[in-house]
Amino acid sequence: MRTPVGIVGAGPAGLFLSHLLHLHGIESVVLERRDRAYCERRQRAGVVEHGVAEALRATGLGERMDREGFVHEGIELRFDGRGHRVDFPALTGGRNVLIWAQTEIVKDLIARRLADGGQVLFEAEATAIEGAETERPRIRFTHGGAEEVLECDYVVACDGFHGIGRASLPAAVVRTFEKVYPFAWLGILADVAPSCDELIYAHSDRGFALHSMRSETVSRLYLQVPAGTDPAEWSDDRIWSELAARFALRDGGWTLGQGPITDKGITPMRSFVTEPMRHGRLFLAGDAAHIVPPTGAKGLNLAMRDVLLLAEGLRAWFAKGDAAGLDAYSATALRRVWRAEHFSYWMTTLLHLDPEGSEFDRRLQISHLEHIAACEPAAAALAENYTGLPAV
Amino acid sequence: MRTPVGIVGAGPAGLFLSHLLHLHGIESVVLERRDRAYCERRQRAGVVEHGVAEALRATGLGERMDREGFVHEGIELRFDGRGHRVDFPALTGGRNVLIWAQTEIVKDLIARRLADGGQVLFEAEATAIEGAETERPRIRFTHGGAEEVLECDYVVACDGFHGIGRASLPAAVVRTFEKVYPFAWLGILADVAPSCDELIYAHSDRGFALHSMRSETVSRLYLQVPAGTDPAEWSDDRIWSELAARFALRDGGWTLGQGPITDKGITPMRSFVTEPMRHGRLFLAGDAAHIVPPTGAKGLNLAMRDVLLLAEGLRAWFAKGDAAGLDAYSATALRRVWRAEHFSYWMTTLLHLDPEGSEFDRRLQISHLEHIAACEPAAAALAENYTGLPAV
Repeated sequence: MRTPVGIVGAGPAGLFLSHLLHLHGIESVVLERRDRAYCERRQRAGVVEHGVAEALRATGLGERMDREGFVHEGIELRFDGRGHRVDFPALTGGRNVLIWAQTEIVKDLIARRLADGGQVLFEAEATAIEGAETERPRIRFTHGGAEEVLECDYVVACDGFHGIGRASLPAAVVRTFEKVYPFAWLGILADVAPSCDELIYAHSDRGFALHSMRSETVSRLYLQVPAGTDPAEWSDDRIWSELAARFALRDGGWTLGQGPITDKGITPMRSFVTEPMRHGRLFLAGDAAHIVPPTGAKGLNLAMRDVLLLAEGLRAWFAKGDAAGLDAYSATALRRVWRAEHFSYWMTTLLHLDPEGSEFDRRLQISHLEHIAACEPAAAALAENYTGLPAV
Repeated sequence: MRTPVGIVGAGPAGLFLSHLLHLHGIESVVLERRDRAYCERRQRAGVVEHGVAEALRATGLGERMDREGFVHEGIELRFDGRGHRVDFPALTGGRNVLIWAQTEIVKDLIARRLADGGQVLFEAEATAIEGAETERPRIRFTHGGAEEVLECDYVVACDGFHGIGRASLPAAVVRTFEKVYPFAWLGILADVAPSCDELIYAHSDRGFALHSMRSETVSRLYLQVPAGTDPAEWSDDRIWSELAARFALRDGGWTLGQGPITDKGITPMRSFVTEPMRHGRLFLAGDAAHIVPPTGAKGLNLAMRDVLLLAEGLRAWFAKGDAAGLDAYSATALRRVWRAEHFSYWMTTLLHLDPEGSEFDRRLQISHLEHIAACEPAAAALAENYTGLPAV
């Protein structure tokens, strides 16, 4: 098999890249080790930056998103038993975010790629990426029991943190940066109307909690738990009572609606960056190159920004033989990556209870949160980052 | 001896309080264990917030400050070999800071108190504060070899971190919060014109450095050094060469002027808060109640804000028997204190090399600094805090 661009991984990054290349008239093949149903079911992020939502619209993927997703013009920071709203459009000159689950974006992308005649091979597991330093890199993969080879002009690994993409860069050229947090998120989906119109980020003495939503009848809720927690330790009753305690307002004027829990899972918390994001004709995008803790809702958005940049570079190359965009890709993407890494770390350490932290640290968190509530520039810096800084 | 308000410590807080009370027609006695020459020579902070400078002017202490001090409308953040200016008035709606050394404020305050017939007893060492829970608290002190007692309506301890004031609160009512940093500042005074018009806060792989100034012919410079450093380890040559390396610009377009070093000292880095700042008729103000690392230039300013608040409370009490201001003092002051604690911690961790930090942490610092340089709200939040938030 042969293709101009071989893509490993049918997550949002790989599928969106394949879609963008198609719009530029460039063919690609996407290899995905899981089956289609798994890809369409996987629960991940749900907050889409203003600029990423615009990019989805501009490329024909906005229809269902705009019909079924929710425009959110703010979030609530809840701390010390009180709530404070951060008003995004007022603080950013009109930007907002869209609540639209990654899994829905994936569904739309798969449907669209297949409708456009795109090649998305499910249950096709890439086993090796070879020849990145040559003009004919190859992806070895297994599919339907057979060993196959995909010959490419370029390979893009969108295969996540545990994929083979990053491991295919020679160790000598790679630098990695990492931070592991001593806590994780226990996330649930519940069949109950959200108890709020906008996301609530709650700081409490018991730990962090987040109230998000998937639809008008499905709530998405998260609890900070110690790293390594087994979800089996958390009965439904325990989850609801802990959520209620962390979201409690001092005046008692708020109640968390409860309903059947349909999904329960652990999200580990990690910061990770690999540099560079390119070696020869192999490019990394999304989680294959960088991980952020989910607090800032940046993981999906970074991945989408990576492939927007990369698609533009590949377009210039295939259309005009202009390599400038491809050559600049790693450095350009990494500036945004480090911005998001800092923001995600900042949101995480602002809101989570550090099991090794002191009472001094906790008081600094409260003072910082009060500052964001009282000082417009401090709130604006949060809003600018959350809604997505203009292209860096 | 008897006085309405007994004040321990003739630093800027104690002296300014005594001056403010005098303007309200309330007598006080200041007890200071050192001699006058020592108080007037002690090198401390040099950045006065906009609002504190206005308070000094409004109370007749602005003349020499405005003649000899420098109005600074910004600072330079220097990192990654480049400089970025933070423009205070543009970002805060007109606020700036004044470069005017604490030691000069102390000189003016001592001269003014003595000219106004104020009682400032030097070499008078307070040894005990008694009866804080009664209506007649007493300060025991030694003066000229004799043991004496100062009977007061109120006692205000402005006697610094190591003074007896804080220790005089019953342990059962006190909570303390503390953070000690693994680094300190080596500070020098040098007879050389400053190499910059505004302060330079420099982040470098070698550690933090700060370029400040005392006059047109005297520079004040600081180097981050490990906690516990003996200044004797630092020859003048070593200091100048290390300063030059940390301030170096990538394009080489800047040179640090050198001159004779006339003072060399270590400033330890500590965050500390005690709560409450009042017990009965004993009040704490300034360093007696809270310490910030010097990076945010908040120590002097917090002390002056404390006594402005306290003087107003004492005025209302002595004039009208209204205790509301005194009763609110601790909680009101602590809101500002915690804001300054957070800002000082933030500036410190933004700019210093953490000897236990990872390369990931260092990259976050650079990303954060780049964000302040690129994102107006992020710069404005810094400027708002640095020039001094309006009364909280």
